[in-house]
Amino acid sequence: MTNMKTLAKHATIREVGLRDGLQSVATILSTSQKQAWISDAFAAGQREIEVGSFVPPKLMPQLADTAEVLAFAKTMPGLHASVLVPNLKGAERAISGKADLMILPLSASLAHSLANLRKTPDDVVRELALIRAARDAAGSKTLIEGGVGTAWGCTLQGEVAESEVLRLMQALLDAGADRVSLADTVGYANPYSVSKLVEKALKIAGNQFCCGHFHDTRGLALANVAAALQQGVTRFDASLAGIGGCPHAPGASGNASTEDLAFMLEAMGVDTGLDINAMLALRSKVAYWLDGEATHGSMWRAGLPKNFKPTSALSLSIS
Amino acid sequence: MTNMKTLAKHATIREVGLRDGLQSVATILSTSQKQAWISDAFAAGQREIEVGSFVPPKLMPQLADTAEVLAFAKTMPGLHASVLVPNLKGAERAISGKADLMILPLSASLAHSLANLRKTPDDVVRELALIRAARDAAGSKTLIEGGVGTAWGCTLQGEVAESEVLRLMQALLDAGADRVSLADTVGYANPYSVSKLVEKALKIAGNQFCCGHFHDTRGLALANVAAALQQGVTRFDASLAGIGGCPHAPGASGNASTEDLAFMLEAMGVDTGLDINAMLALRSKVAYWLDGEATHGSMWRAGLPKNFKPTSALSLSIS
Repeated sequence: MTNMKTLAKHATIREVGLRDGLQSVATILSTSQKQAWISDAFAAGQREIEVGSFVPPKLMPQLADTAEVLAFAKTMPGLHASVLVPNLKGAERAISGKADLMILPLSASLAHSLANLRKTPDDVVRELALIRAARDAAGSKTLIEGGVGTAWGCTLQGEVAESEVLRLMQALLDAGADRVSLADTVGYANPYSVSKLVEKALKIAGNQFCCGHFHDTRGLALANVAAALQQGVTRFDASLAGIGGCPHAPGASGNASTEDLAFMLEAMGVDTGLDINAMLALRSKVAYWLDGEATHGSMWRAGLPKNFKPTSALSLSIS
Repeated sequence: MTNMKTLAKHATIREVGLRDGLQSVATILSTSQKQAWISDAFAAGQREIEVGSFVPPKLMPQLADTAEVLAFAKTMPGLHASVLVPNLKGAERAISGKADLMILPLSASLAHSLANLRKTPDDVVRELALIRAARDAAGSKTLIEGGVGTAWGCTLQGEVAESEVLRLMQALLDAGADRVSLADTVGYANPYSVSKLVEKALKIAGNQFCCGHFHDTRGLALANVAAALQQGVTRFDASLAGIGGCPHAPGASGNASTEDLAFMLEAMGVDTGLDINAMLALRSKVAYWLDGEATHGSMWRAGLPKNFKPTSALSLSIS
């Protein structure tokens, strides 16, 4: 465990609002609104954005324009655009759209996996092997991330054994994942359990462990990020205005909020590359588009502390 | 810095909703409502409650019945009842009411101190010496806590130097404080700055350092508690439903929410002695009384995770 004197100098906030966020709200943003979101986020310093999901449009009409949104994102120089893919068919679309990264979600909870994906976790591991073969056969550069969800528990079965999470993470790597990540899909994690599981995950995956994804269902998303950061994790999913969530916890907060997380990291001396005030302006725009939907977070109300010096600005002024 | 493998086995949540919370809302609870709050909190396992403030009733009519509320709290066997006192006059009332503890707030920010208390921080240190003399002369057992506020910054002057916070903490101890504590009055702290300042405060005050008080203005109260806990702090202020706050940040969240903090600690394996479901029932009652006022927190919506085993229950079943 790294203590707070030796935190990483930089961390990346990967925006998932356009996927995890929008899939959970009723409002359907237009393609041009999504493009404006991506442009503004890019201008504010975001360099990693999950732009959508290649699921059947009937299942998720909010994300039906993912191919177009991905094509737009690819026009931003240096933007790393990712998409969620539920299976090989989705992966083929991600490959043909030249996504920089495709994320295959696996649920470590058997009950949750069967209920949500109609597959066992090991079926998903086999799907990843097929995706890897297809990617390699196509000569594609699209990276493959195996995302292990319900890693800290699940609303259906309660506890999920650490050993099962770690076994599935290893299996994803063995099946050809370039990277793996852990997600607290339903907000069951706490700083202690995060610290404990992430330490073990890093031993297995090393620098192939790429991201922590924490939901704020029980108010602990930022505390959990801080715990993972202390273990050496330097990439975190978050969604603007904290949109997203879980159908099993209606009204509960969704993801860690991008703008609050950016503030926490910058205040801790961890450079995110983000202009927090520009992110707050974008948050205000997106919240206006999503009028009537639940939004979350604190920074939009509280603003930056007086005379606050973000780490990003300091490192810019030095370099 | 303690890592998460060696966290304390027990921690105390000191309820400040009846003081810090109620002083910030317009609704005035009746004395019998406050008594019901204290009774229910006691039944749910709370053993430390700040019941009010001995300030002039004209300034804070919400807390005008503090003497009565304190007398009621003193009837609960084993309940440690504290009050805030702004000066010697308030301290004399705390002593005559046989409070277990009186807390004298000091603001480490000179600007904030002059604006809010019309005194310099060093004037407050001198007041503490007068209070100590009066307490000793009365043969009273009421403990004296010097609470250093705006310890991580202030809305008026921005940064507050660590060296000044620590100097004032030492001065309070030298003037006769039995205990000292640190408060992030306006929500400027982050896990890194908490870790850093608390480590130094513990070196100065040792086991006379008694409490961390974190506001959730920027969503970091629980992350800050986790950072202080890792340093070895085992008492935290919190208010039910997160009520409270700061007039300088309208609409912003107030204190760490008692019920969310209890969940975080119990989930981390730190016994709080609290029955979370009983606390949630009390939260619902208090939120009903405060209808129309802003309340906060996540646990009231999300509930406990499936099959959740609180640490308190585990330790009860062992003993």
